[in-house]
Amino acid sequence: MHGATLMGLAAAAGAASPDVATVEKTMTGSAFDLQHAPVALPFPAKSLNGISERLIQSHWENNYQGAVKALNVIRARLGQALLDANTPPYVYNGLKREQLMRTGSVVLHELYFANLGGNGKADTDVRAKIGASFGTFDAWESEFRKIGQGLAGGSGWVVLGFNRRLKLLENYWLADHATAPVDATPVLVMDMYEHAYQMDYGAAGAKYIDAFFLNINWESVGQRL
Amino acid sequence: MHGATLMGLAAAAGAASPDVATVEKTMTGSAFDLQHAPVALPFPAKSLNGISERLIQSHWENNYQGAVKALNVIRARLGQALLDANTPPYVYNGLKREQLMRTGSVVLHELYFANLGGNGKADTDVRAKIGASFGTFDAWESEFRKIGQGLAGGSGWVVLGFNRRLKLLENYWLADHATAPVDATPVLVMDMYEHAYQMDYGAAGAKYIDAFFLNINWESVGQRL
Amino acid sequence: MHGATLMGLAAAAGAASPDVATVEKTMTGSAFDLQHAPVALPFPAKSLNGISERLIQSHWENNYQGAVKALNVIRARLGQALLDANTPPYVYNGLKREQLMRTGSVVLHELYFANLGGNGKADTDVRAKIGASFGTFDAWESEFRKIGQGLAGGSGWVVLGFNRRLKLLENYWLADHATAPVDATPVLVMDMYEHAYQMDYGAAGAKYIDAFFLNINWESVGQRL
Amino acid sequence: MHGATLMGLAAAAGAASPDVATVEKTMTGSAFDLQHAPVALPFPAKSLNGISERLIQSHWENNYQGAVKALNVIRARLGQALLDANTPPYVYNGLKREQLMRTGSVVLHELYFANLGGNGKADTDVRAKIGASFGTFDAWESEFRKIGQGLAGGSGWVVLGFNRRLKLLENYWLADHATAPVDATPVLVMDMYEHAYQMDYGAAGAKYIDAFFLNINWESVGQRL
Repeated sequence: MHGATLMGLAAAAGAASPDVATVEKTMTGSAFDLQHAPVALPFPAKSLNGISERLIQSHWENNYQGAVKALNVIRARLGQALLDANTPPYVYNGLKREQLMRTGSVVLHELYFANLGGNGKADTDVRAKIGASFGTFDAWESEFRKIGQGLAGGSGWVVLGFNRRLKLLENYWLADHATAPVDATPVLVMDMYEHAYQMDYGAAGAKYIDAFFLNINWESVGQRL
Repeated sequence: MHGATLMGLAAAAGAASPDVATVEKTMTGSAFDLQHAPVALPFPAKSLNGISERLIQSHWENNYQGAVKALNVIRARLGQALLDANTPPYVYNGLKREQLMRTGSVVLHELYFANLGGNGKADTDVRAKIGASFGTFDAWESEFRKIGQGLAGGSGWVVLGFNRRLKLLENYWLADHATAPVDATPVLVMDMYEHAYQMDYGAAGAKYIDAFFLNINWESVGQRL
Repeated sequence: MHGATLMGLAAAAGAASPDVATVEKTMTGSAFDLQHAPVALPFPAKSLNGISERLIQSHWENNYQGAVKALNVIRARLGQALLDANTPPYVYNGLKREQLMRTGSVVLHELYFANLGGNGKADTDVRAKIGASFGTFDAWESEFRKIGQGLAGGSGWVVLGFNRRLKLLENYWLADHATAPVDATPVLVMDMYEHAYQMDYGAAGAKYIDAFFLNINWESVGQRL
Repeated sequence: MHGATLMGLAAAAGAASPDVATVEKTMTGSAFDLQHAPVALPFPAKSLNGISERLIQSHWENNYQGAVKALNVIRARLGQALLDANTPPYVYNGLKREQLMRTGSVVLHELYFANLGGNGKADTDVRAKIGASFGTFDAWESEFRKIGQGLAGGSGWVVLGFNRRLKLLENYWLADHATAPVDATPVLVMDMYEHAYQMDYGAAGAKYIDAFFLNINWESVGQRL
């Protein structure tokens, strides 16, 4: 790869960057120009029980903030690609997939941090509401944990969600940030990507699940219910 | 595999079969025993413009109803598998993935049929609301169509949805029934599985997209907004 | 979206197209510049039993050739994107995913057409080889068909393949063109995307599977074994 | 769900349990009863440069061996499920997907460990062969690394493989163990699941990629070429 050639291409690429003023004039809609601002950790990083400050700080800084930055870049690129009549639809959809993936990562991480930082004790009201859908609260917990165990060593999320169409609380297995139930509101979210536990627990996903339960902020969950 | 081993496995499996009395006591919740009832087509099958009665009837009967039946079977199997202590978590998650896939199919099909049967004309109010997020209504339409073109010949959905977390109307590319944005309410849903158009249009996905737009029930979309 | 703006952007995009001479100089490797040439149908389009000329012709022209064209476009875009220092890795991977998807589509379709056009009768030798891995030839067939039935109404492939690592003939479920076993050589390939049967059979996937079996070119399969 | 219904289901399930004698007679083939034996680490766990003994040992023991065990369990379950006439095809495919996922994990991990333990120095012959497909060896390396960077923080694999159909060395992006090119032989495999680096490098995926390159066993790669 010759320097000269690379420089030439870079210059050409520069010339092609959409003029900022132009973009602003044509793609004023937030669907194309929203810039998402990261949300701070809702608890002191050192306050968790069995999840280290180092891990949760890295999780927030690198994985969550990285997703925010990527989402903002992709959104801007979508605006440009849509205006370029030469963009084939399947190339455009490559970007849309990345947008869906990063949006899921941003939203799920925000929900995850917001349902941590508690004392892990669900009050009677929350237990009753969950129990009403799953037979018992313990039946709910056993399914939620089982899904998590099945994801350990890989990636994904476990989500207790309210399915707005079926009018039903259910647990969901999510393979990645872009897998999700349609029209369901997450109530409790557990990250099973290995960055959520490897630093503290190595491959011992089950121990992380225990730690996760110790730190659930059930008040926050109750408000979502 | 020796007969002895197989017999051993069979015995173990038998021993682990959920005790019926136990099942009744623990698995009363709707998360495990809901039986979804199919929703009728919200318009006469022969009333669409450019989408044949034969196709839409087959779509509803075979693809949608098939998903309803599969979902009901899987839900019952989940209840049994969870009670069986021998079910490995990764086997359980194989069922959870099927549940997510069928739930998505059921919900998306119901939304799809419900946003068809109209005259394809969006009123000023709907156009303004969509335009507010995308710059113009036409910009929205061009992205929605482009995503659809990129899915033609394969499978998936295009969804205009309201992202409840980002407070934003966006178009989404969905690879299949289990791909979706987290916590977003679908507003307009277009099926791009080939069963939505092959019978009438063969491989001509673009013609189907035209026909879809002619039949959008914008009043229904307006209510979802 | 104003015409003037769009025209300006189009001009800019044109200006940015990598100079052909430059590309040639730097990206001479076939990994970046191979242009795949479509392979003709290996049998007369009207010669199949229970699969119409119209369907197989459309399948070859639109779905297969479409994949070839898309693959060629994406390969060229990868070469450009890699040279552009501004391409974020996750945007690059959006293109790599499309490349994998189209490559899978091209290769699987070529294998599919090449194992059709026969009389559906497997000779003793082939039956014995397959039976050796599955217990009996019928056991193999029952699994192959069952996987196909599970994919009907959606998309994917069923592949009998030789796993070069496990030294084993196995049947594989493929969700889409980018799902596949690692280091396995396909021996018999059945397309379960709906474009393989909807025109002739509507939603009746099981009837298509019957027709597929009537047309298997077992000599071709035998050579792959 | 009423007790009567559940009892009916249980009875049906019981009745459908594969008859042991039948299983023996029909399911003797290795496709249903192969038990994969784990392959030892091909180098001393403490011998790597910048990848700790603790990490590589855990990677082998937990992630790789876990996949082997899961694969063996799933294969046995497939044999049982296929014989049970009550198994719906979509439930069967849930197991087939898990089989594909675990098979991919087993095979990719074995290839990964086998291409580590070297001194990271590619000889002239290997460099020439790779350069022939990518223009230059450096062009190959820049793409391979870029794909890896795009996967950091998530999961997946980067594979340099020989596409046996296109007669071409290419780099592949794999989203997970079940994503792969069809009929391609892996030549160099880099694990980008977070268990490959989080213990040593936290979220710093780029540092892991550097370490990976320092430990490539190019002789092993050369033999695969």
